[in-house]
Amino acid sequence: MSIHKNARMLISFANRRRVIFLALAAIWIVTWSLSLWAMPNDAVPYPAGYRQWARVMSALVGPKSPAFALHGGIHHVYANEKAMEGYRTSKFPDGSVLVADFLETRESAGITTEGPRRRIDVMVKDSRRYPDTGGWGFEQFRGDSQTDRMVTAQIATKCFACHAQQKERDSVFSRFRE
Amino acid sequence: MSIHKNARMLISFANRRRVIFLALAAIWIVTWSLSLWAMPNDAVPYPAGYRQWARVMSALVGPKSPAFALHGGIHHVYANEKAMEGYRTSKFPDGSVLVADFLETRESAGITTEGPRRRIDVMVKDSRRYPDTGGWGFEQFRGDSQTDRMVTAQIATKCFACHAQQKERDSVFSRFRE
Repeated sequence: MSIHKNARMLISFANRRRVIFLALAAIWIVTWSLSLWAMPNDAVPYPAGYRQWARVMSALVGPKSPAFALHGGIHHVYANEKAMEGYRTSKFPDGSVLVADFLETRESAGITTEGPRRRIDVMVKDSRRYPDTGGWGFEQFRGDSQTDRMVTAQIATKCFACHAQQKERDSVFSRFRE
Repeated sequence: MSIHKNARMLISFANRRRVIFLALAAIWIVTWSLSLWAMPNDAVPYPAGYRQWARVMSALVGPKSPAFALHGGIHHVYANEKAMEGYRTSKFPDGSVLVADFLETRESAGITTEGPRRRIDVMVKDSRRYPDTGGWGFEQFRGDSQTDRMVTAQIATKCFACHAQQKERDSVFSRFRE
């Protein structure tokens, strides 16, 4: 009898482990689905690997500029290969990604070097997802974060209102510096 | 008779053209061979397409710096893919190419932008060709020129004497700015 009882206990223990595993798996699947659902379909993805892309141009916003408080420091614009095609043709194909990288600067004995990252500004071309803003999606990521997003739908509309001035260059201000 | 005479003249004219063509071709081949012979075997090639390579780091040399006269302006360092491996491992494989791009700057209302190119400095890793300078070949190209070379063998020795301080980093000063 005690052998049978032990066997029953073992089976029951194995069953319980299976139930716990299935319950955890179900919770994980639900959480993951919700997280996908929570991210809007038009969210601009973080531009992984952009630091290896071609540098388009750079500029330094110094303390004498009225833009210093918001944009002070050095910024570099990067383009993926599709966006490089856009600089050549003034028509950026879907899949073009532009990144403006804003870094603080440090000055010592007349030499200015790059400090911590303030934020990156991202533009992604996708005519179907962003029909209301010239086919461009706009986003900003704070500091080095890949998830701390700063742009709301309202802000994106403002981004585009300004970029739209560059109609003949597909809403892009920067130019590739040879 | 006159028909025969005309035919002879035509043949003679065709022959003369052929002789002139062959003579010009011979002169061109000799000139080209001499130009190859004149360029030393250890000449550092112009780094075609470096503006599309990954940007390693940037710095700005301002008027307050004692280096301003020679190096004033913004400079960007670029690395080809093999050199990018070197930044990760501190050992730069043969075929690594580093380019420091020196641009003048313009300042207006606190915004500093990129001006004309002063020169580019090039380092090429080739252990067999440059055994006396840590495996690195050094060159500078003036302005936008791909042929106006500024580095003599004597200067290259000086370049290396300074770079050799970075022994544990394979004679490279710059670091990749993530």
